[in-house]
Amino acid sequence: MDMISELVDANRILFHQRIVDAFGHVSARHPQRAERFLLARNVAPGQVTAADILEHRVEDGEAVMADPPRLYLERWIHSEIYKARPDVMAVVHSHSPAVLPFAVAKGARLLPVCHMCGFLGSADGSGPPTFEIRNTAGDASDLLIRNRELGAALARSLGAGRVVLMRGHGSTVVAESVRLAVYRAVYTEVNAKLLLQALPLGEVQALTPGEAEATRIATEGQVDRPWNLWKQLADAGAGAQA
Amino acid sequence: MDMISELVDANRILFHQRIVDAFGHVSARHPQRAERFLLARNVAPGQVTAADILEHRVEDGEAVMADPPRLYLERWIHSEIYKARPDVMAVVHSHSPAVLPFAVAKGARLLPVCHMCGFLGSADGSGPPTFEIRNTAGDASDLLIRNRELGAALARSLGAGRVVLMRGHGSTVVAESVRLAVYRAVYTEVNAKLLLQALPLGEVQALTPGEAEATRIATEGQVDRPWNLWKQLADAGAGAQA
Amino acid sequence: MDMISELVDANRILFHQRIVDAFGHVSARHPQRAERFLLARNVAPGQVTAADILEHRVEDGEAVMADPPRLYLERWIHSEIYKARPDVMAVVHSHSPAVLPFAVAKGARLLPVCHMCGFLGSADGSGPPTFEIRNTAGDASDLLIRNRELGAALARSLGAGRVVLMRGHGSTVVAESVRLAVYRAVYTEVNAKLLLQALPLGEVQALTPGEAEATRIATEGQVDRPWNLWKQLADAGAGAQA
Amino acid sequence: MDMISELVDANRILFHQRIVDAFGHVSARHPQRAERFLLARNVAPGQVTAADILEHRVEDGEAVMADPPRLYLERWIHSEIYKARPDVMAVVHSHSPAVLPFAVAKGARLLPVCHMCGFLGSADGSGPPTFEIRNTAGDASDLLIRNRELGAALARSLGAGRVVLMRGHGSTVVAESVRLAVYRAVYTEVNAKLLLQALPLGEVQALTPGEAEATRIATEGQVDRPWNLWKQLADAGAGAQA
Repeated sequence: MDMISELVDANRILFHQRIVDAFGHVSARHPQRAERFLLARNVAPGQVTAADILEHRVEDGEAVMADPPRLYLERWIHSEIYKARPDVMAVVHSHSPAVLPFAVAKGARLLPVCHMCGFLGSADGSGPPTFEIRNTAGDASDLLIRNRELGAALARSLGAGRVVLMRGHGSTVVAESVRLAVYRAVYTEVNAKLLLQALPLGEVQALTPGEAEATRIATEGQVDRPWNLWKQLADAGAGAQA
Repeated sequence: MDMISELVDANRILFHQRIVDAFGHVSARHPQRAERFLLARNVAPGQVTAADILEHRVEDGEAVMADPPRLYLERWIHSEIYKARPDVMAVVHSHSPAVLPFAVAKGARLLPVCHMCGFLGSADGSGPPTFEIRNTAGDASDLLIRNRELGAALARSLGAGRVVLMRGHGSTVVAESVRLAVYRAVYTEVNAKLLLQALPLGEVQALTPGEAEATRIATEGQVDRPWNLWKQLADAGAGAQA
Repeated sequence: MDMISELVDANRILFHQRIVDAFGHVSARHPQRAERFLLARNVAPGQVTAADILEHRVEDGEAVMADPPRLYLERWIHSEIYKARPDVMAVVHSHSPAVLPFAVAKGARLLPVCHMCGFLGSADGSGPPTFEIRNTAGDASDLLIRNRELGAALARSLGAGRVVLMRGHGSTVVAESVRLAVYRAVYTEVNAKLLLQALPLGEVQALTPGEAEATRIATEGQVDRPWNLWKQLADAGAGAQA
Repeated sequence: MDMISELVDANRILFHQRIVDAFGHVSARHPQRAERFLLARNVAPGQVTAADILEHRVEDGEAVMADPPRLYLERWIHSEIYKARPDVMAVVHSHSPAVLPFAVAKGARLLPVCHMCGFLGSADGSGPPTFEIRNTAGDASDLLIRNRELGAALARSLGAGRVVLMRGHGSTVVAESVRLAVYRAVYTEVNAKLLLQALPLGEVQALTPGEAEATRIATEGQVDRPWNLWKQLADAGAGAQA
């Protein structure tokens, strides 16, 4: 299936671009069966091959096959978002290094500040929400989305958005396609790095909601350009990181 | 044509030196026909080959050939600067990561602070200007220089200078040759990185206008040395980034 | 012996992951003889081979063999910790770059802030202790743990913990296995990088003691996943760093 | 001559370790004729071969050979330091990126903060001095050490020290051997990076003068270990940077 090959590429690109390391995962809704999604078994993203991709059920987050290999501990991130958001066709969960500070520092806001990152915008000009797992799991949890209830709480926090930060954990990004989800995951990191460097210089000028929406539409029409470049780099890198 | 080969090298060097990623572009004025310039079709800079370089008209920013392939959305950055500035022979547009914070934080000034970067200086000691697209396109634009009017506004902001920052977007650098434009683009980034680290340490001592001009002349006479090194590194890197 | 091979891999992984450079060392308690430990002779970690691994005595930190080659100057870091802590099976000593600022700035605390780094937590919510060698060696020492007395002082500072910072020097990490010690050394650095970037953004939300313990248990059960990836990367890197 | 081979290695190591880029240079006093020193012709350090190394006179900084190729513009950095300091056997001049902020921000002090960098210390606990070229060349110079007078002024600023910062320019490091000069150049950069990250965390605890001297002696006795590693990495890197 072409989608499996696309998903393997997404895993390798996200690893090569340093969005995921030994941890993190990317999934795609099944192109023919909307009640299923494709996700690797429990393996580091940079090592995923087509044989590792398993069909999972949106309903309960479990693998379709009987007696599956070890699965990702947090597969309910994916299943509950697909359930709540019929428009979402791909999900990336990562701990990318520049985004995490915004998920750790109270009140930090990951506002879109450059034209490649308009997708971080929203109508009210706030940045992506932050999911606080303590509100659901209490203050002694392992922070993992390890069941349906927690996945559903995360999906509620994401709401109709494209990106949700997860306190002390990382972020989850959604999109209408695998390529767009990868683009957004990479550029969420780019915007975060930029903000980390701009904030000490003075008052940061975020994109207006109108600019965010206009730039989002303009840049996302170019998504194949970075995808093709990243794929070529990941292929050439032979498993290393950029 | 030798200039095409030079321009392909410039694309590959700018990519290898991490000034451009999947986006950004570099052009050269046509060496025989001053009313034309050479610019790649819409492709990532690190993947540009001689076959991708197309002649464009300074007059309207369009390709000379009939029925051209997809062109860069922002080719008017180049055409309008060549129109306004007969002295300019090469233009680099990028979103390089250390420069962007200076195009995002209000009032931040990219002053020249080391002898390799005197070209950032000006007679009045201010750093490069920042182009605010809202003054021309309003506050809900996609920030792209997507027509002649916006290109002309950017060229006015650049004025007689060598570098112009673009709010929420990146920067554009001009020079009398392709090699010098590449040099300036790389060292604009070097100076920005340096400033980002020096500003928290105390009062930054910028070059005086006299020092900026004297260092500019001294270092730019050495431009072949970094060009040759960067070309060798890009050739050896086989498409990867440094 | 399998443990020697594991230790060689640990050296190469720590080098490839930039936890050690020309300096730093990792040891393992002897799997059959608890009164001995395995540690390389005085050689850069990235160059360690099986032939370099020597048995040392816990009792006095010296090599078991007669007339040994030059040994590490600081082997008492290892011997005294093995003596004080029968539960410890592996020790990593490094000067990793993001951890060092926390060992240099007075009062800086390396609190666990993300779920991969719960092992940095403690019951009272403080971060790892910092060993001040001046209290034992006076204020004109060379900061090295160059005898048993200093090793014992360091071991007392570590106490029942997993990580101890060393003022002006680096850190030492312990664990129940070589793989876990490597994991903790790498993720101590990850947490430090994260904190360095989060602190300027606002009030940092550390893990609660309960979260730290729960995440530690959850993530450390996954330790083979990063180990296998890091080993593959170090093998492919052929002696270079990531 | 073995010293030529050592100097070629030094050039390649400094490039691979990112202490020099297309600019910067390293020299050695002639092992038999103290009134001469060895320095490459005007070429990027990473591209230096044995054939590029020329004998220069300490007396006037010029090449010994008649009709030499183009020489480094700043060779008087080397000649005047060798003249003023008979103990100095090697000199490294660079613009390494973390050191430059300390040469740009007024009052910033590059104090030794870790045991690998004790050589930055001094009896009075101040860090390395900063050379202000304006005091000799006025406020419109090109900042380059382009004649004997400026070289002599720089040598006076260095005094009996090991490192001198140069405002708006970079730094110069001296030592009793090529290997030690390379070690000090690399670890000056390491200490600078560390300070840049530690300063925002709280009061930085510098080494005492006694600690600085004791650590200097202890670590510099180990200089072959990093040299051998760096040489291996530079050889394997085949011209690229780490």
